[in-house]
Amino acid sequence: VHAGTPVVCVAKGIELETLMTMSEVIEDVLPVPLHPYVAVMSGPSFAKEVAKGLPTAVTVAARWERIARQVQDAFHTKTFRPYTSADVMGCEIGGCVKNVVAIAAGISDGLGFGANALAALITRGLVEITRLAVRKGANPLTLSGLSGLGDLVLTCESDLSRNRTVGRGLAAGKTADEIQRELGQVAEGVRNARSAHELARRLEVEMPITETVHRLLYENVSPREAVTTLMMRETKPER
Amino acid sequence: VHAGTPVVCVAKGIELETLMTMSEVIEDVLPVPLHPYVAVMSGPSFAKEVAKGLPTAVTVAARWERIARQVQDAFHTKTFRPYTSADVMGCEIGGCVKNVVAIAAGISDGLGFGANALAALITRGLVEITRLAVRKGANPLTLSGLSGLGDLVLTCESDLSRNRTVGRGLAAGKTADEIQRELGQVAEGVRNARSAHELARRLEVEMPITETVHRLLYENVSPREAVTTLMMRETKPER
Repeated sequence: VHAGTPVVCVAKGIELETLMTMSEVIEDVLPVPLHPYVAVMSGPSFAKEVAKGLPTAVTVAARWERIARQVQDAFHTKTFRPYTSADVMGCEIGGCVKNVVAIAAGISDGLGFGANALAALITRGLVEITRLAVRKGANPLTLSGLSGLGDLVLTCESDLSRNRTVGRGLAAGKTADEIQRELGQVAEGVRNARSAHELARRLEVEMPITETVHRLLYENVSPREAVTTLMMRETKPER
Repeated sequence: VHAGTPVVCVAKGIELETLMTMSEVIEDVLPVPLHPYVAVMSGPSFAKEVAKGLPTAVTVAARWERIARQVQDAFHTKTFRPYTSADVMGCEIGGCVKNVVAIAAGISDGLGFGANALAALITRGLVEITRLAVRKGANPLTLSGLSGLGDLVLTCESDLSRNRTVGRGLAAGKTADEIQRELGQVAEGVRNARSAHELARRLEVEMPITETVHRLLYENVSPREAVTTLMMRETKPER
């Protein structure tokens, strides 16, 4: 890394011990004069489709607009369309927590729920992701964009997702360990559920879906019990 | 209709001649002392799944909170969960324009585009629906809720949708009339595209996806040309 070259962070996550996002980790290890060069790219973008040249749109966020524009220009092609943003935190938080909602989507499948429930889950999932992001300083509008809503829809509606498989396993009464042994690999959402839950607890942000997934993964609650608790919360205003 | 009984409007649409929404039409024909009883119910709710008792969540909006709560109480069951809102316009506008975005989703399928493009379309679709709703006095947050985002996701991700079939037909180069003859019935989005386009024009709201669908349906533009124009608009900030 040297001055003049943007550092584009594409991996999203919350570090378990420090509860830092990836851009915070990068800033933590880079000297301050290099911080303006940090950019985050996020959005609904299955790599396979990007490679095939299928149309894809993503968000590129950097605190300095000219850095975001530099990254935008470097990546913009006939089929790959980056939109710029100044909201680094808003751009990356959706990519961390979407995997937790995808596990919940798998649980919903596994319990035999349908498309209405999935659409509600995505909607309420975005509400709690936005709540967390805003508490971390993000602009709520960013979460309604490609890196928030767009990525969440892609992950939750896709059957390919490992997270979804984890959710279906949980619904069938398997433990997280059993499911991961069967999968032969780690589903991101399993770790994300832990760090998102911990961050929400520390910042006192209400995240009922994340909370439910965490209880199923780490607190041995039965799926039907957990989901019924979620559905039967007191009826109330939408926000 | 008599005082004391809420009028729950579940049909959504924009009347072509007057460009009024259904709640505006109802208020137009009811005497003012009955206006407080007008409520709108909207959200991701395939009737078939509701009838089967599969979990469903919707928004109930009325200008008077006690009316919204009365409707909420009347409909709330173990599996049907209404959330209240005071934003009548915000609650109903999503239900009108989602069908237009669903046609665009069908066009995207028909051109061989993938899940990345669909997720981007839903996201950008919600941005322009929100823009129109806000211009009509809605709270933008309502559009990120069940009646906006939730219903849009359900409609666009579902293969059952007639609107989607219309879009696929347009992508194959058929005319709107040919497609509707084959379908044997009217797809809501075909009318909605006309009224939403007209309303957007009158209120000077930018709605590029609606505009594109309208051009394909009513202005004989070729699908690839229309979509390329949409994708190749100047790169820019996300909002």
